[in-house]
Amino acid sequence: MDGTTPPAVLTIAGSDSSGGAGIQADLKAFTAFGCYGTSVITALTAQNTKGVQGVHPTPPEFLEQQLRAVLEDIDIKSIKTGMLYDAENTRRVASTLRAHFEDTARIPPLIVDPVAVSTSGHTLLHPEAVDVMAKELFPLAALITPNKPEAELLLSRKEGSAHARIETLEDMLSASERLLALGPKAVLVKGGHISLTLADVRKVVASRPDLAVVQENFLGENMEILQVSEEVLNARPLVVDVLREAKSVTLFVSPRIESTNTHGTGCTLAAAIASVLSKGEPMPEAVRQATIFTHVGIETAFPVGKGHGPLNHMHMLTRKLVPPPRPSNPHPLTRILIQSSKRTWKEYVEHEFVKQLAQGTLPKECFLHFIKQDYLYLKYYARAYGLLIAKSATYTSIQSATQTIMYIITEVTTHKSFCALWGISEAELSATPESPSTTAYGAYLLDIGLQGDSAKLIMALAACLLGYGEVGLWLKKEAAKPNSWVKLKGNQYLKWIEDYSGENYQAAVKLGIETIETLAVDNAPNARQFHEWCVIWEKCTRLEKGFWDASLNLL
Amino acid sequence: MDGTTPPAVLTIAGSDSSGGAGIQADLKAFTAFGCYGTSVITALTAQNTKGVQGVHPTPPEFLEQQLRAVLEDIDIKSIKTGMLYDAENTRRVASTLRAHFEDTARIPPLIVDPVAVSTSGHTLLHPEAVDVMAKELFPLAALITPNKPEAELLLSRKEGSAHARIETLEDMLSASERLLALGPKAVLVKGGHISLTLADVRKVVASRPDLAVVQENFLGENMEILQVSEEVLNARPLVVDVLREAKSVTLFVSPRIESTNTHGTGCTLAAAIASVLSKGEPMPEAVRQATIFTHVGIETAFPVGKGHGPLNHMHMLTRKLVPPPRPSNPHPLTRILIQSSKRTWKEYVEHEFVKQLAQGTLPKECFLHFIKQDYLYLKYYARAYGLLIAKSATYTSIQSATQTIMYIITEVTTHKSFCALWGISEAELSATPESPSTTAYGAYLLDIGLQGDSAKLIMALAACLLGYGEVGLWLKKEAAKPNSWVKLKGNQYLKWIEDYSGENYQAAVKLGIETIETLAVDNAPNARQFHEWCVIWEKCTRLEKGFWDASLNLL
Repeated sequence: MDGTTPPAVLTIAGSDSSGGAGIQADLKAFTAFGCYGTSVITALTAQNTKGVQGVHPTPPEFLEQQLRAVLEDIDIKSIKTGMLYDAENTRRVASTLRAHFEDTARIPPLIVDPVAVSTSGHTLLHPEAVDVMAKELFPLAALITPNKPEAELLLSRKEGSAHARIETLEDMLSASERLLALGPKAVLVKGGHISLTLADVRKVVASRPDLAVVQENFLGENMEILQVSEEVLNARPLVVDVLREAKSVTLFVSPRIESTNTHGTGCTLAAAIASVLSKGEPMPEAVRQATIFTHVGIETAFPVGKGHGPLNHMHMLTRKLVPPPRPSNPHPLTRILIQSSKRTWKEYVEHEFVKQLAQGTLPKECFLHFIKQDYLYLKYYARAYGLLIAKSATYTSIQSATQTIMYIITEVTTHKSFCALWGISEAELSATPESPSTTAYGAYLLDIGLQGDSAKLIMALAACLLGYGEVGLWLKKEAAKPNSWVKLKGNQYLKWIEDYSGENYQAAVKLGIETIETLAVDNAPNARQFHEWCVIWEKCTRLEKGFWDASLNLL
Repeated sequence: MDGTTPPAVLTIAGSDSSGGAGIQADLKAFTAFGCYGTSVITALTAQNTKGVQGVHPTPPEFLEQQLRAVLEDIDIKSIKTGMLYDAENTRRVASTLRAHFEDTARIPPLIVDPVAVSTSGHTLLHPEAVDVMAKELFPLAALITPNKPEAELLLSRKEGSAHARIETLEDMLSASERLLALGPKAVLVKGGHISLTLADVRKVVASRPDLAVVQENFLGENMEILQVSEEVLNARPLVVDVLREAKSVTLFVSPRIESTNTHGTGCTLAAAIASVLSKGEPMPEAVRQATIFTHVGIETAFPVGKGHGPLNHMHMLTRKLVPPPRPSNPHPLTRILIQSSKRTWKEYVEHEFVKQLAQGTLPKECFLHFIKQDYLYLKYYARAYGLLIAKSATYTSIQSATQTIMYIITEVTTHKSFCALWGISEAELSATPESPSTTAYGAYLLDIGLQGDSAKLIMALAACLLGYGEVGLWLKKEAAKPNSWVKLKGNQYLKWIEDYSGENYQAAVKLGIETIETLAVDNAPNARQFHEWCVIWEKCTRLEKGFWDASLNLL
């Protein structure tokens, strides 16, 4: 997504036909984080937002076959497990991982989400599988992510139900410690089922200075201008997730969101953690990013189905408006610009003025009017490049714009010698009154230069540069055809045609196109900017046409 | 993705554990197009980029259960089918759709990708299922999307193998017509297996003026500046897809891409078509967008696995850098700015100058130096808002900036009366030499105003507006504490504190925060812009601190 090869991530979980949980949620989360998703399906479910209607477990040997197919071919950077369904499948996942990686230290970061019961109350893990998971899978795990009922279930099977209840933040801290003893490298006890307040958190933190607290969407120092009152803050219900690693404990504190769009929350969180870990980030950073992703997903959920809807996995994504340059289309933005203004562009580059010029039939007065106005216009054009220099962030762009001004000065010299040829002195040239179409175009360039950033100005300057290049190449191509309508021989305007189809000018066009394409890559436009670029390009194309209209309609 | 509710789309297909084809490719494509993906799994495969190692078909009754779970709960806007595996599953898909929708006209646009054989040669559809698909599913379809071998298979079962060979564009046109007779509303015969040249296309189009030709990534009128020579164009191998609808035929012409990353191409194309159709676009537009999506996906593929890798489903996506505003965090960008410059921001708003001022112990000379320099600074600040007006696109933003200038003039009046109180005349105020920290800050604002667009300028103007608001609220809060270090009573600077914590100023702060947040929503920054915004904010925060340093270090 950002030009680097996406890391491959694997989910081993159930399939949710309704797309909100299971491998479907995982694949969506992987994609949102720019990872390449693969999946081993442990069981199919017939499911929607109202509940689980049926489960069709995958035979263990076919589960293993899927897992081997992925591991033997693809360089997996992290793994998450979700619903494993029964003891045999759970055991098979552990044994296949151990067999494939031989040394368990070589297993990529493994997040075990100990899914046991669905939100709607459907059993998703057979009771005996709980023990297998704890015994065989937890020791391989970089992290396990139980919620309150799952943590209670795990603890009660280990210690008996007497001490397994989790009601307070202290209970969560204690539970995380006891669960860590089951063998995973880290434990995240999720607080979605336990309502806490800021006072609860402060009380615990006061007596436990070793606790790190991450409260991204909540409190911030020196943010009085954004804050509600202390009373409101203290009363607001919170969600606190407790991350325990071997040597540290981190609390992730977020405001509690009232929502029915919680289908797939656990899957999504674990998949998001796996995604961030696959990029080499440390565990607390992965949990931090994943917690925000999941919370924003719940808060920005859109309606799907009639029951507990899924969260929004796409809230972080936006669509690129210009495809990347590639061998079959190295200039996508230039193409889009030309295509989006197709008709005006054609009216400009195949203008009657150009046609008469190419046939040598253009009245001298028209050409002289044009060349004198162009002389005046090019002063605006050079000044606009001056503005571009003033807007430049790098010496490279300063140099490139300066080079263009030098081209313009050369072009103006040609204009002067043209005029001299036709008996017009430099004094007469300078004294020519500016026509409205010249002022319109020139002043518009400077207006864009004042209004916007360098990207907008580059767009405004492009139609002139590229259009004359297009005219030059078009005439050259037409002239090469047998019995061409273009008359080069004896044409009084030959030098003009040769200049714009010549190497020097075409090199400048090429540079201009590269600059435009670089803009789209380095400075990917959002919808508004893209629209502005297209509008500016189209307007300049029309102003170019108007410029020739004025010269032709003179008579 | 763009703020509207994403349409829900359904895939009925096989699962590809390696994530490049099947429902995994479909879900990735749906997400790329901003659709909500659901999936009914017809069979599991153990598969990787080197081939299909095993298939575990879903029992027909469980296939039906999944399909009913989705259709009964979720408002599906389009459906695509991929690998259906056998006759029974194929029949079950058709019968369940008919039963659920009762009137077949109510079935959402259905794209049938008649997957028969995998790229690696694995049979993915039992032979007898081909006839069931043609007989039962095609009449329900808005489109079928066979490639050459699939079209040949379908035609040979219908007409015998004698006339089923497809080698030329003429063959493709004929095949599309005969396949349309099988009952679908449209047929897309895909040309990936048939190499054509521009000459082939031109020959056919010359004799068939009824054919529409879409050649997005290929030829364009008046694009000489982007083109390679006619000879190269004519020789370049092409892919041509033929779309036949009841009353029209469209050819989609693209350059042929040599690539081994073609795993899942057919799945992706059909899923992309379904995605575009789900938004209500007509069929040719859906095929056009899907063709480009698939081609760019192949061309931008990244390495996965050791065999035929998948295409890149994420090439159109980019990640938002500022999360959307939401109830639990209505001001995400302002928070990010403050957090990203945390230390400097704290040094600014809790500056020693402010503390001494709040205690009333600040030497009068320091305050006077500050107030005189602030008087000079505010002229730059007002002028920068003038530049913002010049950069405005709407009367609303012109009005808002003008309002701010009015605030500044009021603020200056307060400064003058302060000074009068301390015996400083307006003449003395105006004659005060500007200190370097005042010039640095003021000139930087105008530089940003010249360099960039209005967004950058708004960022530059924000640290001053928001920072003084933060100081005002902080002091007010501290003053309210019992035995506060802040001394309001008898404090010679009381009016200053009251002004910045007062309603009027805080209303301006609120407006400023809303403007910043609107920027992030309407003008979502790309990575470069976001970085620039953060840098500008941090720099202005530091310049603010420097301003107070200068006043305090005077003595």
